[in-house]
Amino acid sequence: MPKKIRLGILGGGGDSLIGVLHRVASHINDNYQIVGAVFNPDFEQNMAFAKEIDVPTDRIYKDFDTMIEEEMKLPEDERIQVCSVLTPNFLHFPMALKLLENGFHVICEKPMTTSLEEAKKLQAAHEKAGTVFALTHTYTGYPMVRQMREMIKNGELGRIHKVDAVYYQGWINEIIHDQEKRSSVWRLDPKKAGISSCIGDIGVHAFNMVEYTTGLKIKSILSDFNYLYEDNQMDVDGTVLIRMSDHVKGVIRSSQVATGEENGLGIAIYGEKGAFRWEQENPNYLYVLSDTKPTQVYKPGHAYNSELSLGGTKLPPGHPEGIFDSMANIYLGVAKAIRGEQYDSGEYPTMTDGVRGMNFIEATVESNKNGNTWVELED
Amino acid sequence: MPKKIRLGILGGGGDSLIGVLHRVASHINDNYQIVGAVFNPDFEQNMAFAKEIDVPTDRIYKDFDTMIEEEMKLPEDERIQVCSVLTPNFLHFPMALKLLENGFHVICEKPMTTSLEEAKKLQAAHEKAGTVFALTHTYTGYPMVRQMREMIKNGELGRIHKVDAVYYQGWINEIIHDQEKRSSVWRLDPKKAGISSCIGDIGVHAFNMVEYTTGLKIKSILSDFNYLYEDNQMDVDGTVLIRMSDHVKGVIRSSQVATGEENGLGIAIYGEKGAFRWEQENPNYLYVLSDTKPTQVYKPGHAYNSELSLGGTKLPPGHPEGIFDSMANIYLGVAKAIRGEQYDSGEYPTMTDGVRGMNFIEATVESNKNGNTWVELED
Amino acid sequence: MPKKIRLGILGGGGDSLIGVLHRVASHINDNYQIVGAVFNPDFEQNMAFAKEIDVPTDRIYKDFDTMIEEEMKLPEDERIQVCSVLTPNFLHFPMALKLLENGFHVICEKPMTTSLEEAKKLQAAHEKAGTVFALTHTYTGYPMVRQMREMIKNGELGRIHKVDAVYYQGWINEIIHDQEKRSSVWRLDPKKAGISSCIGDIGVHAFNMVEYTTGLKIKSILSDFNYLYEDNQMDVDGTVLIRMSDHVKGVIRSSQVATGEENGLGIAIYGEKGAFRWEQENPNYLYVLSDTKPTQVYKPGHAYNSELSLGGTKLPPGHPEGIFDSMANIYLGVAKAIRGEQYDSGEYPTMTDGVRGMNFIEATVESNKNGNTWVELED
Amino acid sequence: MPKKIRLGILGGGGDSLIGVLHRVASHINDNYQIVGAVFNPDFEQNMAFAKEIDVPTDRIYKDFDTMIEEEMKLPEDERIQVCSVLTPNFLHFPMALKLLENGFHVICEKPMTTSLEEAKKLQAAHEKAGTVFALTHTYTGYPMVRQMREMIKNGELGRIHKVDAVYYQGWINEIIHDQEKRSSVWRLDPKKAGISSCIGDIGVHAFNMVEYTTGLKIKSILSDFNYLYEDNQMDVDGTVLIRMSDHVKGVIRSSQVATGEENGLGIAIYGEKGAFRWEQENPNYLYVLSDTKPTQVYKPGHAYNSELSLGGTKLPPGHPEGIFDSMANIYLGVAKAIRGEQYDSGEYPTMTDGVRGMNFIEATVESNKNGNTWVELED
Repeated sequence: MPKKIRLGILGGGGDSLIGVLHRVASHINDNYQIVGAVFNPDFEQNMAFAKEIDVPTDRIYKDFDTMIEEEMKLPEDERIQVCSVLTPNFLHFPMALKLLENGFHVICEKPMTTSLEEAKKLQAAHEKAGTVFALTHTYTGYPMVRQMREMIKNGELGRIHKVDAVYYQGWINEIIHDQEKRSSVWRLDPKKAGISSCIGDIGVHAFNMVEYTTGLKIKSILSDFNYLYEDNQMDVDGTVLIRMSDHVKGVIRSSQVATGEENGLGIAIYGEKGAFRWEQENPNYLYVLSDTKPTQVYKPGHAYNSELSLGGTKLPPGHPEGIFDSMANIYLGVAKAIRGEQYDSGEYPTMTDGVRGMNFIEATVESNKNGNTWVELED
Repeated sequence: MPKKIRLGILGGGGDSLIGVLHRVASHINDNYQIVGAVFNPDFEQNMAFAKEIDVPTDRIYKDFDTMIEEEMKLPEDERIQVCSVLTPNFLHFPMALKLLENGFHVICEKPMTTSLEEAKKLQAAHEKAGTVFALTHTYTGYPMVRQMREMIKNGELGRIHKVDAVYYQGWINEIIHDQEKRSSVWRLDPKKAGISSCIGDIGVHAFNMVEYTTGLKIKSILSDFNYLYEDNQMDVDGTVLIRMSDHVKGVIRSSQVATGEENGLGIAIYGEKGAFRWEQENPNYLYVLSDTKPTQVYKPGHAYNSELSLGGTKLPPGHPEGIFDSMANIYLGVAKAIRGEQYDSGEYPTMTDGVRGMNFIEATVESNKNGNTWVELED
Repeated sequence: MPKKIRLGILGGGGDSLIGVLHRVASHINDNYQIVGAVFNPDFEQNMAFAKEIDVPTDRIYKDFDTMIEEEMKLPEDERIQVCSVLTPNFLHFPMALKLLENGFHVICEKPMTTSLEEAKKLQAAHEKAGTVFALTHTYTGYPMVRQMREMIKNGELGRIHKVDAVYYQGWINEIIHDQEKRSSVWRLDPKKAGISSCIGDIGVHAFNMVEYTTGLKIKSILSDFNYLYEDNQMDVDGTVLIRMSDHVKGVIRSSQVATGEENGLGIAIYGEKGAFRWEQENPNYLYVLSDTKPTQVYKPGHAYNSELSLGGTKLPPGHPEGIFDSMANIYLGVAKAIRGEQYDSGEYPTMTDGVRGMNFIEATVESNKNGNTWVELED
Repeated sequence: MPKKIRLGILGGGGDSLIGVLHRVASHINDNYQIVGAVFNPDFEQNMAFAKEIDVPTDRIYKDFDTMIEEEMKLPEDERIQVCSVLTPNFLHFPMALKLLENGFHVICEKPMTTSLEEAKKLQAAHEKAGTVFALTHTYTGYPMVRQMREMIKNGELGRIHKVDAVYYQGWINEIIHDQEKRSSVWRLDPKKAGISSCIGDIGVHAFNMVEYTTGLKIKSILSDFNYLYEDNQMDVDGTVLIRMSDHVKGVIRSSQVATGEENGLGIAIYGEKGAFRWEQENPNYLYVLSDTKPTQVYKPGHAYNSELSLGGTKLPPGHPEGIFDSMANIYLGVAKAIRGEQYDSGEYPTMTDGVRGMNFIEATVESNKNGNTWVELED
């Protein structure tokens, strides 16, 4: 009989949207209980937020290091088991590293690190620790995404020969077209935001979606970035040609200046026997195409779906579940892993996804800098 | 600073879907904590379920009466504040009544009672109690449903002249077409399921949606039921002509034999200046029609939405929230009411909705029995 | 080897939209040539229009009677073979009657007559004449409508148990809400427009669509009209409960005040084994629903379609054909009939459809007048 | 008052789909009459087809040269005025050239020629002839495509910064995956089909759509082709990075192995103030996106549309016109040009479009051959 997993939270206080997403997701399947946190670097705000959401304040810590120190003093069956890292990007690496080194399980927001180098160090620490590490590529938690993965694994599309993934948003428009805003916002300052804006923030989700669903590895890429203005130093739009094995090619399109697009992640996968089309904004509709038969519309919760897909649906068909449920499915997979229960490799994204993601981001930056040449990804 | 509201649960144990829906919804905005429950009439299963979802077992009671008795002995600031009634339909009335009589707030599943007579008794008890009573017409929690209500209130459609609501499902097909199944299932046994299947279970949601969004009252109805087989005693399909005030007419269509339909609740509202079309299965798309301008597609989370709508959205546009979030919005409204905070009348459905719903159900049964005549609803 | 059929046109001159529709449709399959016409009651305008569209002017007549007289003098192999009647509604009956009595084939716009009585007289004349008579229920020419008919005929839905048809438009809004306009426009003057506006003009299309696709006859109806204003004498909105054989029920919804709706004809048909959903504004998408399998999206031109459906498609899948092509399919069926070639009964609507349509219109008016009672249609 | 333009047809006999498309389009607006033709290189079949579609046989010629010779003997006011070239691709150039040299107007199917070199020769001949030359980029005839062009011209999107066009089909799958078929079909034989299959056949339509709608010129391209099999010599899939002026970038995606896609041409255009999304398979829906306002759905035939768009619509909103009507709009523009009437530059694609298209095709082949380098297009 399960007892709730003791969850720690780093970041995500106040009005943080990512905080809401993780907190709700952790509750949804009755698997987690928040027992400790540093919601905010300011201790007063930290405590206030804990009270606001009614988390006991005795294990609300003044900073991360104190949290580790104090928690390690507690008996193992009271100590935080898994910690969600929701802090600003540059803190993901040091925090996740220390958590792993002290034997905690980790749920880490994306991007995992700020460089491939850091990612590999984290990977080494993870291998040594032997605990659970999950990277929240949230969108792989959708039942119909999992359905694609299973159907491809079962050969229902035959050999894949073309993949087209997209992640279009328009929200950076109001910043980029205003010279003062674009020169002052941290998002477009490479010192603060890292080497890539568009690919690093959203393109990498499309990359992960391609590898998650097809089970194939992207071998090389060629990218073209758009900065839109001479005085802007960060990519706000990037198109990436991709090559997988054996005449399998494709494209990853990403943009933060796709005016009017909200959160336009999508994928189309074309194989010998059939094809898929799926869009994040209508996550419960999976279009299965054929050259000879009518298009089929798969929806969650039906007996025709795979076990992996059905495991991510709580209500009967027609009751739309959404992004919180998608994240909850990832938390559910992590819970199974922590408890040593059986789970499918598709239930949560791992350290490997994080390392590959950083490799992809760095490769696209390099390709673009080199005048749009092909760059190989590591195996 | 809020402290979580102490929530009791009646029913909803085991694999109960309605249990999941309420539990998740209660967690989503960090407002409730389950402190006591009778999840199951079987005490062993009750306790087992409490352990499974890691609810403290000290206030898991053997039955409803014991729960009331024991809780009343507790000091007021430890006692259950609000109780969710998720038991079989015929128990809603006696449980809600006793809860109200003992000063508890109540969140009650639908149908509120099994007759209009019971509904009125409950209404009287509620008036006396002065506590909060919410009926979970879940679908009115969707942000775009709330947006319709606000836009109509603000006169953006002008005078309404036509309403068309629908609730189509196909799930009863596998029962109704099999003589043995249809004669044995409790759903189609009037002794167990009450006076109406299709209208009582789903048609009434469409009825409530009409009144919730338009702010108008339905004054009279004429209904035609379909039983599909001579030996079937319960309506599995019903169309209802409706009349509101001043040349405002419409139709409510409901069916449980609409093959292949999943949970097809929808509404179209036509006014002098514009119109709405909305469907539950794609709840984040509200189509605003005009005779002279392009159709506009409203989506949640945008600054152009009303306050009531925005209050039901937690993430930025393009992050699909769904049915759990809709129910969570109703729980949020109830939390505000319990805490004496300001809230909008559209934030949760009340006793009045429950009484009107029972009136509607009884009227459709009467109209159909009388050979499809007009029956007036009470004011 | 076919030689083009000699076509006469009555009405449809100037800016007439119905004129464009018929003229284009007659050309599309290279089957017809316009050889004579009375496009306009004003002879000057008649001649001018003939020149504008470059029809030889030697057989442009000053009026209908002259046309008949002169054409009858011509040798049979020069004479007009078929005449399209596109004149104002009240002229359909006398013109079609005289055409039939003189041995012409007739393509008649809808409504066929202004009363059931006239319709029956025309039917008698048609039986006597033995020529081809087609009523242009244009929408039955769409390939996916024909596909529904064939699939139902082949039993693919099993026993039908529920039908829901709709025809919503919003164009009358700008007239109806203006007291002066609504009291002066011929459309809303019963002396000029006949006994019904909404049902007569569009509801009857939905009625025909139900009978065309299901192959079932509607046996009785109960209707409720909305006039919207006390001083308005014509129905601008009407909902009709329908009963077919054996526990098969349904509803026909029609409105001319459905704000923002353009030409919203649609149908949903629910059977034991499956269901259909189709909408005129997206005529190339037929949704085939099932309780257990993914929804299938049928599109025209595929090998999986029926012969009747494929006969109405000229280009490969993905090349959208529209309303002109739908009408052209009906003209194609008429051409086959005139030439004595084999054709399917679904290729063009007949006199029987016309008589039934008038019966339906009169029955709905009667039901509404009687306080919404059931009225039986003739067999 | 117009008299029908005398039209000649080269090719398009028998079951030719392109023949149907042009013939119907020429009829639709009552502007053209077929007076002469070489439908087929086999004279017997040529004559048989003329009889089948009831075209007078006196000017059905045994071959193209005879046609020119005989027509030139006729008085100018009887002679063919414009000739539609629907023959196999390699004949477009010599036929169009000779037609121009003899003073005929020309409507030419795509691709205009088999090389840029030929295209430029034809351009020179056209400049000398001074007659009308139209290239049938059919899809630019759709009203909503024309609406995009006008709205961009009027500055409604502000500065464009991103364009994404696609043309996906799946029909070559059944050939490409079968070694025997792919080695024998003329389509995939570079000697017969020219230098490019996918880009030459469909990618170039997407290219033209980009330039037609935005009014911008593509300056350079980088392409990556997929041949799918070692033994296949023709591109069946190609992705093209594009650069226009001033930080304006984009992508053109095309494929003939996009399984289950029918005729998936589409475009998305993102500007400072708004964006467009449009798809050929639903040509009557133009989505106008904004970062701050609800998405608007433009449809044809409304007063809010531009004059250029409205000129391409014959019926009121909600009566779907399709691909034949789109081609008819191009024929209408050509008719105006031939008659010396005023017309908009967007009413038919010209020689310039043809030359640019051949430039694009050759550039993509070169880029791919060079290892995916940037290639500049001519000004």
